[in-house]
Amino acid sequence: MSPGALFTDFYELTMAQGYHRNAMNRRVVFDMFFRRNPFSGGFSLCAGLEPLLEAIETFTFSGEDLAYLESQRVFGSSFLEYLETFRFGGDVYAVPEGTVVFPNAPMLRVEASLIEAQLIEGLLLNIVNFQTLIATKTARIYLASNRGKILEFGLRRAQGIDGALSATRAAFIGGAAATSNTLAGQRLGIPVSGTMAHSWVMAFDSELEAFEAYAELYPDKAILLVDTYDTLRSGTQNAVIVGKKLAARGQAIGVRLDSGDIQYLSHAIRRQLDENGLTDATIAVSNELNEEIIHQLVSDGCPVNFWGVGTQLVTGGSDSALTGVYKLAAKERNGEMIPTMKVSDNPEKTTDPGIKQVYRLYDPDGSPIADIVALADEEIVAGRRYVFHHPAIDYRRFSIVPEGEIRPLLEPVMRDGRVTRQAPSLTEIAERTKSEIGALDPTYTRLINPHIYKVSITDRLKELKSEMVRQIVDW
Amino acid sequence: MSPGALFTDFYELTMAQGYHRNAMNRRVVFDMFFRRNPFSGGFSLCAGLEPLLEAIETFTFSGEDLAYLESQRVFGSSFLEYLETFRFGGDVYAVPEGTVVFPNAPMLRVEASLIEAQLIEGLLLNIVNFQTLIATKTARIYLASNRGKILEFGLRRAQGIDGALSATRAAFIGGAAATSNTLAGQRLGIPVSGTMAHSWVMAFDSELEAFEAYAELYPDKAILLVDTYDTLRSGTQNAVIVGKKLAARGQAIGVRLDSGDIQYLSHAIRRQLDENGLTDATIAVSNELNEEIIHQLVSDGCPVNFWGVGTQLVTGGSDSALTGVYKLAAKERNGEMIPTMKVSDNPEKTTDPGIKQVYRLYDPDGSPIADIVALADEEIVAGRRYVFHHPAIDYRRFSIVPEGEIRPLLEPVMRDGRVTRQAPSLTEIAERTKSEIGALDPTYTRLINPHIYKVSITDRLKELKSEMVRQIVDW
Repeated sequence: MSPGALFTDFYELTMAQGYHRNAMNRRVVFDMFFRRNPFSGGFSLCAGLEPLLEAIETFTFSGEDLAYLESQRVFGSSFLEYLETFRFGGDVYAVPEGTVVFPNAPMLRVEASLIEAQLIEGLLLNIVNFQTLIATKTARIYLASNRGKILEFGLRRAQGIDGALSATRAAFIGGAAATSNTLAGQRLGIPVSGTMAHSWVMAFDSELEAFEAYAELYPDKAILLVDTYDTLRSGTQNAVIVGKKLAARGQAIGVRLDSGDIQYLSHAIRRQLDENGLTDATIAVSNELNEEIIHQLVSDGCPVNFWGVGTQLVTGGSDSALTGVYKLAAKERNGEMIPTMKVSDNPEKTTDPGIKQVYRLYDPDGSPIADIVALADEEIVAGRRYVFHHPAIDYRRFSIVPEGEIRPLLEPVMRDGRVTRQAPSLTEIAERTKSEIGALDPTYTRLINPHIYKVSITDRLKELKSEMVRQIVDW
Repeated sequence: MSPGALFTDFYELTMAQGYHRNAMNRRVVFDMFFRRNPFSGGFSLCAGLEPLLEAIETFTFSGEDLAYLESQRVFGSSFLEYLETFRFGGDVYAVPEGTVVFPNAPMLRVEASLIEAQLIEGLLLNIVNFQTLIATKTARIYLASNRGKILEFGLRRAQGIDGALSATRAAFIGGAAATSNTLAGQRLGIPVSGTMAHSWVMAFDSELEAFEAYAELYPDKAILLVDTYDTLRSGTQNAVIVGKKLAARGQAIGVRLDSGDIQYLSHAIRRQLDENGLTDATIAVSNELNEEIIHQLVSDGCPVNFWGVGTQLVTGGSDSALTGVYKLAAKERNGEMIPTMKVSDNPEKTTDPGIKQVYRLYDPDGSPIADIVALADEEIVAGRRYVFHHPAIDYRRFSIVPEGEIRPLLEPVMRDGRVTRQAPSLTEIAERTKSEIGALDPTYTRLINPHIYKVSITDRLKELKSEMVRQIVDW
């Protein structure tokens, strides 16, 4: 989904005209990062990079776009001519999709001309904020289900067409096994799945007829919705009748429950199925599920094989946005890159200046222990002692001799506006997710009140920051 | 944004094949309605109809789409041939956009063949759920601001590209005055606006230079962002310097505040501006605003002229979906339309059977007093006594002699798959909103703990419902 270059906040264009007119279109560096994990969780899962890179490559102004801008009577002809041939020609460094990420460490670094870097701001934040939110939500749901089968059923509750498509993509990255969204199946190659609606059952003269007709048509994927009239006395009994016929032919039914108390009903359904010899029959449940509900049901041993999750998964539920930001970190002056920072009354909102890299330190067993934000020309090597600092609170620091792997998280992905490497497939990204959340100590993935993962800054970055805060009155 | 016919839940297609194969593609009636107002509010504001109608008219399967479906090895050639020429050929009745609507009264009624009605389900719910959610959220924000100027700044936090575009449209319907989303400006004709970013200020060597450069470029729309370094001691003072120069030329600045305590700072800024003779200068504020925060600030008399609202407005904040549903209400049998209903253990989830109309009763002053869900062939006339019933709770009823206007809310908008009337412009829809929420008694628009608006059913509908519940075991 490439919306073109008008998908930008209007002020980016008015500012850009100012930079253009004042010959200020110098080289700059912007960081994208977020300040807190969504869902009060202990981690986030990075997503959205590949669609972003695609959208950046096609971020151009059509003749129609320019005519619209001209009609606003704000832009001069010289700037409009500049936009006519505009394309993003900068470099992008990014954490690969499917990597776990944490607050206050850059997920993306953009090095470009000021106008280039600014015009893509909205696009970048829109795509990365949303897909990271949904990938994170899905990873939480996947973990809550004890790495079970999550079916994404959110098309009808998603925020717009692309809200649905993007959510499906991010959900697959986060751990969903399949989607109900046929368009996402076609465009993204994600497995599609579905059961039946209450309207199917109601369209027939009886529930049993409805089940039989479905089983005849799809004998190898007959998942029968049992709660249209009376789940235990009608739905499950009719499903058992159909299930026995299929079992005689070596095929197994599934049943789906979309209302009522899942704990009570799933046990009762399981019992009815088992008592009738249908031990292979599966149970799928849905109905406004989220990670807390699923965690509770799994803890209580509910016999559920598939979790259909819609609204909460594709919108994030009560946390409907990742509040990622995009901040100027350096600007060129006389051929040199000068660090910049925004100071705020709120120390949490003071940004980290300079061109930076994020190093993830692992323990010798391969489990991440801390992310260190460093200046890009700093190295961190194993076996040497370091003191790292809390990014905002002055007296919090820790001393460490890294012994395991030290991995730089920001990798070059675009140079001079062109993608520099083969995009990983969605399946590869989803596999990365599984290995990433598998490597994380479970205290960080705990659903409620998780352990807070350390994100610290190096001595040099801390000194630069302190020095700049002292000088800020001169800026 | 017309996504084509693959934007549908996969089960609609598997069910459709069943209907096709079993020659069950008879005429049906579906209702779309929701069960509770979002945001714990007292009303909802209907939106999304025009984009929905457009998407329905272009809801067709391309050759590529059919090839994808064939590749799933679930669909036979006869059904795929049927899809090849498929288009929606049904009728749609709808409440006009910008109308206030309430739980449990149909907002849309679809009369079509079973397959037609089912295939558009996801599209219909996706568009109408989301736009109604955002129009409602914006109306709440607009009312909280005392019908002030709301600027929609949500592009970077919206749920995907179309999440942003659709939200901008719905926000304009709900009462936003302008958007930062340039693409929405172009495609929908919504006024665009913007101020400046912190990065503009940081791109210059000093804040004053940054302000001066901006004012020189845009003297008639210089809204200066004053909180990059120190709001009162630096930002506002520099804004005053620039403001005085502009004032000498008869032009007024504005300032924008994006952090810190809005109550404290807006008063202090206002004082500094006024003391320097800049009484025409405006103050815009932003920073994670929502209706509760705005209502508090307005109640406390904060001198704010513009409210920039992003995340909460375009995503709905903690209520990220309207849970609208689409339920079978009648089906044809032997040339007659037979009412159908879904019974549920939860009485609130039992649907209203039959082909229905919603009548809004007004008091003689033109203020709505109740919505009555009736069978479509019932009439309600002024001057006669009626008893209306709570849709779910048995003993709740009220008796009334309607004296004011009685307006049927569902209007014909599409016949045989073609739109039957000229679409209203967005501006007309936004004006309807203002008159609709203006006519509503303020107890219904109260932000917190509002008065619950009556939605009742007629005697005949109640009898039909009771009779069908009694018979349901025979279904």
